[in-house]
Amino acid sequence: MMDKIIALDVGGSSVKCALFSKTGTIEDRWGVPTNKGAQNSTLFEDIAKSIKLRNIDLDKIKGIGIGVPGPVVGDTVYGAVNLGLDKTDVKKALEEALGKTVPIYVENDANCAAYGEFFTLDNASSLALLTLGTGIGGGIILNQAIYRGINGSAGEIGHMNTGDEDALTCNCGLSGCLETYASATGIKRHFLRARNQGIKTKLNQSEINAKMIFDAAKAGDSLALKIIDKAAYHLAKGIANMNVILDLDVVLVGGGLSLSGAFFTEKIKTYFQDLAFTPLKGLEIKTANLGNDAGIYGAYQVVKHA
Amino acid sequence: MMDKIIALDVGGSSVKCALFSKTGTIEDRWGVPTNKGAQNSTLFEDIAKSIKLRNIDLDKIKGIGIGVPGPVVGDTVYGAVNLGLDKTDVKKALEEALGKTVPIYVENDANCAAYGEFFTLDNASSLALLTLGTGIGGGIILNQAIYRGINGSAGEIGHMNTGDEDALTCNCGLSGCLETYASATGIKRHFLRARNQGIKTKLNQSEINAKMIFDAAKAGDSLALKIIDKAAYHLAKGIANMNVILDLDVVLVGGGLSLSGAFFTEKIKTYFQDLAFTPLKGLEIKTANLGNDAGIYGAYQVVKHA
Repeated sequence: MMDKIIALDVGGSSVKCALFSKTGTIEDRWGVPTNKGAQNSTLFEDIAKSIKLRNIDLDKIKGIGIGVPGPVVGDTVYGAVNLGLDKTDVKKALEEALGKTVPIYVENDANCAAYGEFFTLDNASSLALLTLGTGIGGGIILNQAIYRGINGSAGEIGHMNTGDEDALTCNCGLSGCLETYASATGIKRHFLRARNQGIKTKLNQSEINAKMIFDAAKAGDSLALKIIDKAAYHLAKGIANMNVILDLDVVLVGGGLSLSGAFFTEKIKTYFQDLAFTPLKGLEIKTANLGNDAGIYGAYQVVKHA
Repeated sequence: MMDKIIALDVGGSSVKCALFSKTGTIEDRWGVPTNKGAQNSTLFEDIAKSIKLRNIDLDKIKGIGIGVPGPVVGDTVYGAVNLGLDKTDVKKALEEALGKTVPIYVENDANCAAYGEFFTLDNASSLALLTLGTGIGGGIILNQAIYRGINGSAGEIGHMNTGDEDALTCNCGLSGCLETYASATGIKRHFLRARNQGIKTKLNQSEINAKMIFDAAKAGDSLALKIIDKAAYHLAKGIANMNVILDLDVVLVGGGLSLSGAFFTEKIKTYFQDLAFTPLKGLEIKTANLGNDAGIYGAYQVVKHA
């Protein structure tokens, strides 16, 4: 069993777990329901129990990589709101739960996902992964390494201000953040505001979601199309603004919204060409490759390249 | 003479040159007028001649660091508009002019300046230097190293879009770039546009410059104050947007406009607190330390840490 790697991706509802072989294939995968809560959580015990149940010889693994949804500095996550978790030394907590000293590598989940995607690409040394879901997450790879930032908060592109006169207030308290335009929530809010203002649309259901707005846009509904165009425009502006700072090889678009495929990505690319600084128009923008598995692949790579 | 370092900072009108001692003090400094032009420039010959004139034993120096105003990848600058210089292998050109193989390290001038400033700070591992002059330049230090980007164009924060409804067109062809608001040129353009629209000001001369607008603002002129406030607001927005990507220790404000000191920096800091993502409000913003010498100090450090 020497050199196998355990990869964990802690999400709000479940922990994705995988055992990787020496050659980087997934030998076994399982899930653990996420037990939320601050000090009384059994999160790490639940993970440890699931590993022990599988009879994995911990003396013979290369290590455990774990992605957590919060800012990470060293082995500590500085709070994970979606888990109800306060500041926690993740390495120590997992070691205690395992009752054993094991090489454990702790990383932010968005950074893990970006790192996982990085190894699917040829000839790229730097990239950003934008994950478009309820919010917008970001992970950055520079010179082939994860870039964390001083507080573990690098890559928070969802809170870049791309706002204009129709800006909405963000969960974070600011106004005009990218994710108020281009996350699933943001797209829905802008659509509903316009519909409530009396702008005509065929999408008249009271309960709607971003996918329905995408589908209506593809079917030619003019309001839906306008809102999706606005989301693509703001993403392109955010990417152009990020890229004058970072001068990257490639930006990958992942998360639920990227599943609408070329329809959305092509719009982003078109606006990007209008908005990009001329020497940097060569940036490649494309759909991410690993879908929901980016996190566990990244956690595996973190251990492999530690 | 062992271990001395020659530092060169190539500017549009002159090349700043310095000989650094082993301990990092400047033993000698001189200037060379910048001979501009594409293929027929004597720029490198002029620099080489000035070095030879000083009887510096090139066999006994640690190296030559040279900062050039254009994107650098490897030893090559991919064009330097202000010098009228096409794509040039700077190391090769300077070696040929010296008639000698010497360790030569080529770097972008803004990166050099940022690296020079970096060594004036305690306990910082990452920073951005914003140079506010005719345009806005930027250099970035991440994890204690210069960050160049794929095309040598990282840190071009002057071309971040922070624009709103009063955006002006930039030299680069885009609209709403940060430098159209907050460079010396941008401040003057916004002031003149407002004055031409009939907004009252005591600054009525036909020939004005950014310094006069700063002075008028300090003296309480309401239009001048409005324009300087606008510049500070857009700088704060640009810094906040950069920092959600990079999560830095510190941002330094340098260049001619920073000479107005606390008056301007305090405005930037105040707007930054309004615009920053809450977990990143701790970013330090302050005036740069080395003024016009940042470039040669940085070129020295590039050789020292090569």
